[in-house]
This record gives sequence, C-alpha cells and structure tokens, in this order.
Amino acid sequence: MDLDLNFEQDMLRTASRDFFSRQCDLNMVSKWMATDAGYSTDMWRQMAELGWHGVLVPEVQGGSGLSMLEMAVLAMEIGAAAFPGPFFTSSIFSTLLLAEAADEHWQSALLPGMAAGERVATVACCGDTHHFQAAGVPYRAKRTGSGWVLDGKALFVPYAHIADTLIVAAQAEDGSISLFVINQGQDGISVEGLETIASDKLCTLTLDRVQLPSDSILGTPGDGWNILEMAMKKAAVAKSAEMVGGGRTAMEMAVEHAKIREQFGHPIGSFQAVQHHCANMLTYLESATLVTWKAAWLVAEGRDCDEELAICKGWTSDAYRKLVALAHQVMGGVGFIEETGLHLYFRHAKASELALGSATHHREKLAQAMGL
Amino acid sequence: MDLDLNFEQDMLRTASRDFFSRQCDLNMVSKWMATDAGYSTDMWRQMAELGWHGVLVPEVQGGSGLSMLEMAVLAMEIGAAAFPGPFFTSSIFSTLLLAEAADEHWQSALLPGMAAGERVATVACCGDTHHFQAAGVPYRAKRTGSGWVLDGKALFVPYAHIADTLIVAAQAEDGSISLFVINQGQDGISVEGLETIASDKLCTLTLDRVQLPSDSILGTPGDGWNILEMAMKKAAVAKSAEMVGGGRTAMEMAVEHAKIREQFGHPIGSFQAVQHHCANMLTYLESATLVTWKAAWLVAEGRDCDEELAICKGWTSDAYRKLVALAHQVMGGVGFIEETGLHLYFRHAKASELALGSATHHREKLAQAMGL
Amino acid sequence: MDLDLNFEQDMLRTASRDFFSRQCDLNMVSKWMATDAGYSTDMWRQMAELGWHGVLVPEVQGGSGLSMLEMAVLAMEIGAAAFPGPFFTSSIFSTLLLAEAADEHWQSALLPGMAAGERVATVACCGDTHHFQAAGVPYRAKRTGSGWVLDGKALFVPYAHIADTLIVAAQAEDGSISLFVINQGQDGISVEGLETIASDKLCTLTLDRVQLPSDSILGTPGDGWNILEMAMKKAAVAKSAEMVGGGRTAMEMAVEHAKIREQFGHPIGSFQAVQHHCANMLTYLESATLVTWKAAWLVAEGRDCDEELAICKGWTSDAYRKLVALAHQVMGGVGFIEETGLHLYFRHAKASELALGSATHHREKLAQAMGL
Amino acid sequence: MDLDLNFEQDMLRTASRDFFSRQCDLNMVSKWMATDAGYSTDMWRQMAELGWHGVLVPEVQGGSGLSMLEMAVLAMEIGAAAFPGPFFTSSIFSTLLLAEAADEHWQSALLPGMAAGERVATVACCGDTHHFQAAGVPYRAKRTGSGWVLDGKALFVPYAHIADTLIVAAQAEDGSISLFVINQGQDGISVEGLETIASDKLCTLTLDRVQLPSDSILGTPGDGWNILEMAMKKAAVAKSAEMVGGGRTAMEMAVEHAKIREQFGHPIGSFQAVQHHCANMLTYLESATLVTWKAAWLVAEGRDCDEELAICKGWTSDAYRKLVALAHQVMGGVGFIEETGLHLYFRHAKASELALGSATHHREKLAQAMGL
Repeated sequence: MDLDLNFEQDMLRTASRDFFSRQCDLNMVSKWMATDAGYSTDMWRQMAELGWHGVLVPEVQGGSGLSMLEMAVLAMEIGAAAFPGPFFTSSIFSTLLLAEAADEHWQSALLPGMAAGERVATVACCGDTHHFQAAGVPYRAKRTGSGWVLDGKALFVPYAHIADTLIVAAQAEDGSISLFVINQGQDGISVEGLETIASDKLCTLTLDRVQLPSDSILGTPGDGWNILEMAMKKAAVAKSAEMVGGGRTAMEMAVEHAKIREQFGHPIGSFQAVQHHCANMLTYLESATLVTWKAAWLVAEGRDCDEELAICKGWTSDAYRKLVALAHQVMGGVGFIEETGLHLYFRHAKASELALGSATHHREKLAQAMGL
Repeated sequence: MDLDLNFEQDMLRTASRDFFSRQCDLNMVSKWMATDAGYSTDMWRQMAELGWHGVLVPEVQGGSGLSMLEMAVLAMEIGAAAFPGPFFTSSIFSTLLLAEAADEHWQSALLPGMAAGERVATVACCGDTHHFQAAGVPYRAKRTGSGWVLDGKALFVPYAHIADTLIVAAQAEDGSISLFVINQGQDGISVEGLETIASDKLCTLTLDRVQLPSDSILGTPGDGWNILEMAMKKAAVAKSAEMVGGGRTAMEMAVEHAKIREQFGHPIGSFQAVQHHCANMLTYLESATLVTWKAAWLVAEGRDCDEELAICKGWTSDAYRKLVALAHQVMGGVGFIEETGLHLYFRHAKASELALGSATHHREKLAQAMGL
Repeated sequence: MDLDLNFEQDMLRTASRDFFSRQCDLNMVSKWMATDAGYSTDMWRQMAELGWHGVLVPEVQGGSGLSMLEMAVLAMEIGAAAFPGPFFTSSIFSTLLLAEAADEHWQSALLPGMAAGERVATVACCGDTHHFQAAGVPYRAKRTGSGWVLDGKALFVPYAHIADTLIVAAQAEDGSISLFVINQGQDGISVEGLETIASDKLCTLTLDRVQLPSDSILGTPGDGWNILEMAMKKAAVAKSAEMVGGGRTAMEMAVEHAKIREQFGHPIGSFQAVQHHCANMLTYLESATLVTWKAAWLVAEGRDCDEELAICKGWTSDAYRKLVALAHQVMGGVGFIEETGLHLYFRHAKASELALGSATHHREKLAQAMGL
Repeated sequence: MDLDLNFEQDMLRTASRDFFSRQCDLNMVSKWMATDAGYSTDMWRQMAELGWHGVLVPEVQGGSGLSMLEMAVLAMEIGAAAFPGPFFTSSIFSTLLLAEAADEHWQSALLPGMAAGERVATVACCGDTHHFQAAGVPYRAKRTGSGWVLDGKALFVPYAHIADTLIVAAQAEDGSISLFVINQGQDGISVEGLETIASDKLCTLTLDRVQLPSDSILGTPGDGWNILEMAMKKAAVAKSAEMVGGGRTAMEMAVEHAKIREQFGHPIGSFQAVQHHCANMLTYLESATLVTWKAAWLVAEGRDCDEELAICKGWTSDAYRKLVALAHQVMGGVGFIEETGLHLYFRHAKASELALGSATHHREKLAQAMGL
C-alpha cells in the first residue's frame, strides 16, 4: 500500500497550485465569469503552453497520454482556484469521448487542436433535465440520402456559446443512439445562455434541421449511449477531484476566518461549536479526497470499478455540499458577502452536484452495481 | 385546545393571499429586487391602504393594535410571495421597538407615519457580524454639552439606503447601551450597499461624528440592549412566519413539478425517492408552522416564552433550509434556472437564517432558558 | 387559537403523572419486563380503578367515552414512565377497533370487561414483516358449513401470550379481508415469545385449523382492512403521544446529568457542544409534541386529517430516535450502563418506530395524501 | 499510489476470514458473550497458535513484529465476526503500551506470555466517564518507603475480571501521571461487572491500598499520560478497523435481506428507498475503510498523522452508527429479533464509538491538530 503521489504527480501538483495562486484570485474569477465568454482566454492559452489540455490526449495526437491520476491532480487545483471555463467539458469530457471511442479520423481531426488549446469542444447529451439516461437523449437523427438531419433541443450544455465543436447524442429512427460531431457555425444551430444560480455558462443548444455528412458519427454507430456512459463515469472522477479542490479552499477560508475573527475577546475558533464545524469540514474533505484518489487510481489501472465510481461522485457531492454549508456557519454574515468569494464555492458545489448525474442518480447506479 | 384561526384572522389570510397572488409574481419580484430601492413603492402604498403597516401599531397611534398572531398571518403571505421590501425592518421590528419601549414623544413622532406607509424605519444593532450580542453593538456615543455625538459602522443594516428613520444601538462611555433615533440625511451619515448572496439590500451604515440632541434616546437610557432583545425575540416570530410562508411556496413548486414532469413515461412524483422528499418537505413545513403558531400565540397572550421563542426561530431556520434543499433535489436542473424562482426562496432561507441571530445563536439562547 | 389543555385534561395529566411517579420507577420497570407476563398486573388493576382502560370506551359500554385528546394526555405519561404492558394494544388499539367498527353484540361482549381491566385484547394484523399493508395479512379464512376455519402465522403480536381476546385479520377465499374475534385457549392456537431487542413481549401467533362460529367477524365482513387502517391511523396518535412522553423523560435525564456531572471542574452542561445537544433535544421534543397535539385534536374534532396523522407518526418517530441518540451523546458511558434506565427509552423508541408502520411507511402514506 | 494489500497481508486476510467463518457464527458469539468469561478461551488458544496475539509484539519478545497495517487486516475480520474477547485490550492496546514505552524488564516479563495467548492484560486509564483526558485519571499513587500504594476506582475497564495483568494510570502526589503494572489477585483489588447495553464485559476496577514495589512503573515515571495518548491514538486505528469489519457484515446482512425478502411480489431491494439505503451503507463503509487504511498506513510508515488519526476514529464511529441504523431500516422488524444477530453489530457500534474517546472527543483532537 502506498498513498503518496509519485514524483511527477507531485511536481504537477506544485506547478498547478503555483500557477493558479499567482494568476487567478477570486476577484478575477468573478470578473471573468461576468464576461460573455465566461472565462479568461489568456489563461487558457497559458495552460495550453503548460500542456494541461493534453493530459488525457494520447501522445500520438499531440498530448501527453497521462492517466486519470494526473488529471485528478490538476482538476483539484482548478477546483481549488474556482477557475471558470470549458476545461472540464473540453479537455476532460470531450477528450475522454474522443480518445477512447473515436476512430482515427476524428481523433486526428480534433484532438491535436484541443490539446493545443486551440479548439474547444463540448457535449450535449441530455435533454431538458439533468437526468443522465438514454431516455433523455435530446436530439432525433434522420437518415437522408447523403447523411443525416438532426433536430432537437438540449438544456444545460456547458459553454456551447463559444465551443468550436459540438458532440451531440441523437436517437435514430430505429431507436439506436449515436454521437455526432458538429462544427459550430453550421446552419440550423442556435445557442442561448441560461440564467442559472451558478452563472456557469450553461446553454440551450437547439438544432433545427442541421445537415450532417455520413461520417459525422463518433465511434461505432448505435453505440452512443455506451460511449457516453463510459466517458461520464470516468469524467465524474475528474469532476470529483474538482470538487475536492473547491472544498479544500472553502474549508481553508473558514478555518482562517475562525482563527482571526474575534468575538467577546476570543478568536471564534476557540468556541467548541466552531471547532466541531471545522473538524467536520476536514473530515468531509478527507473522506471525499480518499474516495476520489481511489477511483482515479482504479481508472488509471484500468480496473472495473463501477461501485467505486458511483461512490466517488455521490459522496464527494454530498461531502462538498455539507462542507460549504459548515463554512457558511463558521463565517456567518461575512460568508454571505459576495466579495468574500465563499459563494463561488457554494455555486460550484451546487452545479457540480448536478453535473453528470445527481447524488440520487449515483446512488441508483451504486445499488445496481451492488446487484439490487 | 383549538388550533384554528378565528374569523378575522382567517379573513386577513384570505385577503393577503389574494392580494399577493394577484399583484406580485416571481418575475416582478426579481425586477423589483433589481431596482435601486429594491422593492415596489406602489405595492407599499397599497399595503398601507389595507392597513397592514399598522397591524402592530397601537390604535391611538393610527394602527390597528392587533397581536403577533395577526402579524404572523400576514408575514406568512409576504414570505410566500417572496415579496421584497422593508416591511420586516420597518413595520415589524422598528414598530415593536417603538410600540413597546418608546415614550409617547417618539411614538407620536414616528408611528403614525409608519402605520400610514409614509415613513420607513430601520434598525442598526450589530457591528460587523451577525452575532446578536451586546458586545457587538456597532456605535460609540459621546456626551456633548447639548446632546450626543455618534461614531461607528454597522454592516447588514436592511434598507438603510431608503429608510427615513434610523434606530441605532450605541454604547456610551460608561459602557451602557442606548437606542438613538436618527433622521436620514443628517450630516455624517453614509450608506453603502453590500453585495450579498441574497441581493436583499443590506447596507453598511457609517456614522461619522453625527450630532444628536439630548432627546434622541428611544426608551429608558442605558436600557437599549434589553429593549433590543425583547423586540428581537418577538420579531423573530414574525420572521419565522415569513419563512414558513416561503417554505410553503417552495414546497408547492416542487410538488407541482413532481406531478407534471415525466421521466421514463411516469411523473417523477411516482418514484419513491421523490415521494419521500415531498413527504419530508411537508413534515418540515408542518412542524415549523406549529412551533411558529405556538410562539405567536404565546406572545399574543403575553406569556413568558423564552424557550418557545428560541425553538421557533431555530427550528424554522433549520426546517426551511432543509425544505429548500429537498425542493432543489426534486426539481433537479430546473430548480437551478433563475426564472423558475426557486432560488428566491433559497436566498430568503439563507438571509432569514442569519437575521436576528443564527440557528447557533438560538440554540444557545435555548440552552440558557433550559438552565444550562 | 388556544394551545392549552382544558381543566379536565389538565387534571388527568396531573393525576397520571403523580400515579406513575409514585408507583413506578425504572428499576421496577426493568423487573416487570423481566417477568413472564412482562408487566405489573397489580398496577393494571389500579389503572382500572382510575378508569383509564375505559377512556376510549363509550359510556354505554362502561367507559368514559372521552376523546383522543384525553388519551394522548394519558399516553404521554405512560410513555414518560416507560410503563410496560398491553395498555396500547388492548385499551387503545383493540378498543378503537371495537368502539368504532364492531356491532353491538361484540361491543357488549368485550368492551365492558376491557374497560374494567378484566379482559386484555390484542390484534394480529400483519404477517412476517412490520409492513402494514393489506397484502401482508397473516391468516387465511375458509368457510365451513357452520362457520370458519383459520390458518396462518403472524409475528410481532404484542402480549398474545397473556391476551384473553385475539382480534386477527384473515383473507377469505374470495380475497376479501375480515377481522375475526378469537378467545384465547381455543384449539389450534399457539403462542411463542420472540426475543427482540426491546424485550417487549412481541409474540408469534400461529393458528392451525382454528374453528370459529359464523358470528366471529368484527364489523362488516370484507371490510377488515378498512377498519384496521382507520384504527391504526388513530392509534398511531396515541403511540406518538407515548413517544413524546418517553422523549421527555430521556431529555430530562440527560439535561439533569449535564447540570450535575463535572469535567475539568465545570458541569458538562457549560460546554457548548452539550448545550447544543440539549437545545436540539428540546427542539425535537417540542416539534413532536405539537404535531401530536394537532393530530389528537383533529381526531377528537372528527375531521379528515390523513396528512396530519402521517406527519404525526413519521416525525415523532424520527424526533424520538434523534433525541435519544443525543441523550446518549450527553451521558456518554453512563447512559450505557443499564441501571441508568436510558436504554429503556432507546428500546421504546426503536419498538415504537416500527409499531403501526415505520417512518418510511408513513412517508408513503403522506405522499399519497399529498396526491403523489 | 497503490491501494492494494501486499501478498502477505492478503494471505492474512484470507486466513483470518476463513478461520472466523468456519469457527464462529453469531449464535456461538451470543453464547460466548453470555458466559462468565465472555469469550471462548478455546478460540483464544487457536488464535495463539496462528500467531495473531503476537502481531504487534516485537520478534525478540516472541511476536512477529508486524505493523499496524497487518493488525488492521486482522481487526477487520474480528469485527466482521463480532468475535468477543480481550483481543483488543490485551493483544492491541496493552501490547502497544508495552512494545513502545516499556523498558526491557517489563517487555520480557509480559510480552512473550501475551504473544503466546497465555497472559491477558488490560488497561484502566479513565475514571468514571468515557472522557479520555489526563484530568480523568482514576487512581492516586502515594510513595511509601518500599514502593507505592494505589487507591481509586475506574469504570469501563474491559475484561478486568479475567485479566492476569492490569495496567493502570495513577496520579502521584506531585501531580505527575504514571502507568503501573499490577498482577491480578493482589490484595486490595476488587472487580465488579457492569451491566451495559453492549454486554461486553466492562468492569469496575477498585484499588484499595494496593501495595506495589518501586519498579512497578511502566515506561518513564511521570510520562504516563503521554504514553497512554500515543498508544490510544494507534489503538484507535485498530478499533476503527474492527468497526469497519463490523460494518461490512451488518451491510451484507441487510443487502442479502433486501435481495431475498419480498413485498407485493417484488424483492424489497427493488424499491428505490431500500436501494438508496443500501447505496448509502456501502458509501459509509467505503469511506470509513479508506480513512482507516490511510491511518494504518501512516502509522506503519511511522509518520506524524494526528489529523488523520482523529479523522479515522471520528468518522468510522459516525459511519458505523449510520450504517447500522440503515441496516435496521432495511430489515424492519426482522432486524429487531435477536437471533438475526444485527443487534450484535448495533451494540458493537455503540461500544466502539465510546471506546478510546467519543466522536466529540476526536473532533476536538482534530480541531487542535488543525491549529484551532
């Protein structure tokens, strides 16, 4: 047994932690989120230079071909910084879909640009709910002489407003589900921003008779839902790592506050109730960290791990939500003021909990994996 | 034992429910909240015509001299509508302070205008935290030849930016605490809006050598904290009633969604997990409603009820927060979209939990009342 | 609105509280529970003299024909004393079945003796689970020339080992369910005690070709499940009152301990964590008390109240369990020692939670009543 | 990173799991617990032959000198089997005290016999509460010409009634605390069994002018509390492993029940509420398992890990208690019947939670380690 990161992983952790702490404070995060794009394209480019968009991209496609363990290291720091942008949807989720299921043609067409930070991809796989189920596939695909016509509408598509490449799930007339690749800007695409609590650039993506050539399908035709499920399960580990990182910052903020802020002449951290809150925060953080490392390690090892993956996303969501609620308790009214930044983590916790399936969804997946 | 409202109370309930359902939907609420004032002065005037600002004002001062039971009836509907504005701080909290502790001079000077909806008052009683304790009094008062000079700064003062009258707690050089009445617009007052999660017009109120005449003290000099505590305890019942009303709407929204929204061809309300969530919401709502009615009834009866008051605010805060979290679970991503309006209740729950002392604060008050 | 008990109810409360505090301490409770009967027949007789077995029995049948409010008053004191015995199954549940559904014949045959404390009745309505559903009816009834033959086995029948009268639910060949009255001692009956965590005299009641005359059916033939459901709903209010009483004693025990026991030279009740536990106990107790009073009042008023009844049993079960867990936290190892008596309330909480349907069962009933 | 056990650890796991599953079922456990000794001396001897009492004993003293990781493997299986006896107090806690703090004299005198299963030791370190604090040291030590005289009384001393060697904490007149070794049977010792909920052979150990020679002190004189704290922290990892094992069995019992037991013609495991309960059980189990492995690994590596140790015991206690409560929900009335055996795990959870400091205690230790 060995619970340490190896030398390269440790270096990546140090480098990414430094990068974000130097270049990105919470005020800048708020400013970036308030822009149309919703993120800093400048930072995006710098991350490209550091090779971070290519962590999960095979070497042959211009990436570094590392494992989910390295991605978890990076995602923790992104989450800790509350760094906004399409990293998760493009450099993680879309990359997993392409790297593991696409044929050479699509990999070569898309992955090098994505690894270089020059192409942003996103995925539209569920319709008007956050329920990640085959029955919720948002688009219908009709065969034509020369290819396909797609119609339908999906809510909650991250960063569709700036994505270069759209990967969408559509159901054909025979009921089979396939993934299609669409270039932004094609006729019939319309994108509208959703005002959500998290101000996290979720969009409505409507396809109105969008014409696609025959070779637009990513991976085996009809295998779309299996591909999505496989990628969602793995992407959920990276999302969990992001949450663990966010939880760490939220906890540090509250503990720092508890050490400094005084009441009746004592730091509030000397009160038993506050001490218990802080201890509980660290307990939630540590347990979420461990289930996340375990899931990342199992994925990196290529082992079957449906139970561990469902536990990872489910528990990390719960733990992050509970942790942030405790941070709010410790910080009182101060945590309530926007400039403190705690609200960024609160929103991140809510948005992440719903991403790739809620805690309820993961409990059901887990029950299935347990044979129930 | 009789748990029904009487005829007049029932009429008030029907009238206020009708009023808000006809005049105020959640889109308008959002619009009003986005204005500088933060509320609809037109609605405010209509409420004045209906006599609602004067519910707690003695008849001799132009009010209707009703009890906390009637105010609870009204506050529930205000909370249910998520109706924003200074009603709580002016027509409830400030009114209680004046009606129960001020001498005839201040009552006559302020209450008739407040009952008529022509004067808005607010209270600044705590400094830079939400901890409601004598030690947190925000201002310092210095005797001068002709009166007083006040200095200091308070965070979280509701609607200070539009209030005509400011009631502030200040500590004199001898350590005693008194309440002072200040007219808006006087030299040395500055008000700044705080960006909070709830966008509920909390302000920073800074007093910089504000000169006041000798008769500016409300109630017995040196008795300020006792007066505040007494009024806060009673006002907390009305705040709880507001929360109960908000909880009712949030629950109804989620239950309606559960009945209509389908998944796999069934309404999601037919799934056991959703049914349990709905049952738990109603259980939280009902228990919070009953502790609130009991507290309102005891206050109306003039009985000692420190335990019941602390339970009321503490449990209602907890129950409302839990209820809204369940509503979010039921509504999934849809509850996340701003136009649904659920977020208004989420914010209301957070803001109300901190108002007049957090759940922690009320647990301690309760432990005290239990003799611990 | 009036939340006080009336004069007679208050007298009954005082009288019953005195009775149990004088005659029954926790050591005696433990001793009685360890006997074969499992209760004190001497106390049972004294309660008969006080008229308590007849509270719900109509006056014409020798009872006092009082309402569920009076029964709730009494049941609270029984629960507070952890007083063991068949009071709930005979003087409440069986009495409700008979008083509300039986024809004059059965009422006259059984109720006067039950009111006088000379006859003990019990009910066997579910099979091998605690799920209270028509599908779980334990016995099969077959028509014969002269009457019926019953077969089957039920677990968890309280005090079947000493009951004079057994009321059992059986399904006829046509699928209809009826209630049958059986005299103890008849051929084919066998009773075996179950070793349960609560040592509360639950039994297995096996019927092996038990012959019954035609007039053995209680109430309208085929209406058995409706009668049971109606009586279970009302009986659940009395069971909730019992739990509220038990919760009160458990809390008092822990609060008393917190005031007296010292650690580091201070009473442990001066520590914030213990104060919060105590405050939370009282909050659970108060909310459970109020939902119980409301349900009892609605039943006494004869109003429809399916929602309130389901909330009452569901929340009181939850609140009692949480309260006892907190009492254990406060008392530490001391609460762990049997002679302290806290374990009696822990067991009572567990047994009561399962009686007449678990919290899950009541959540489902509530969801149904909400239209889901 | 590597989360697998190594070959030897895996072998130990397989061997111990087989041993307990072949030799010890829950009926036998109940029978052993009901004897005076409270455990099977025959099984004890067999475990000695397998070398298990010597896992933590240095090789030079006849043990195998393995690490906390191996002990965690073994303790999990002991917990899973609900195997009763003084293994924890003798072969873990006392062994740690001796192996890490005693001089060669005491090690040679005691450890070989303990490793061989021929000597049972136990520890009396706290007085009349479960609060593990220096201030709670139960005995007073007075210097005499030739040695020491000890007086005092401790509650909750495990298996003191059969222990050969008693290690007790006593405070000298100068306030310093030392550990003393006492042979059973010496004048002035009296032991009485405590009736606790867990029937786990906790005793009252009274010392009445017990005379000890000068060399009775274990480790550096005056260093008693530090030695105890160090050993308690490590022993808490093994106790956590025991709890993790117990949690596994309780979960398996409930999941098995959910798969087999039918309601309305479906296995109850097909109901969503039961599925969620099962998923939550596994989530608690997995998170507790991981924090336990991490703590065991850090101890085995000899690293500082105060935070991780406090998290380990605190969270494992919480998780085990929650898991068993869910198992009770799933099993309903059946979990309530003693022969099912679930109650053994419930009791184990309660007893283990209090052993070596409650969850509250560990939260405080954690807050301290966090710098609060």
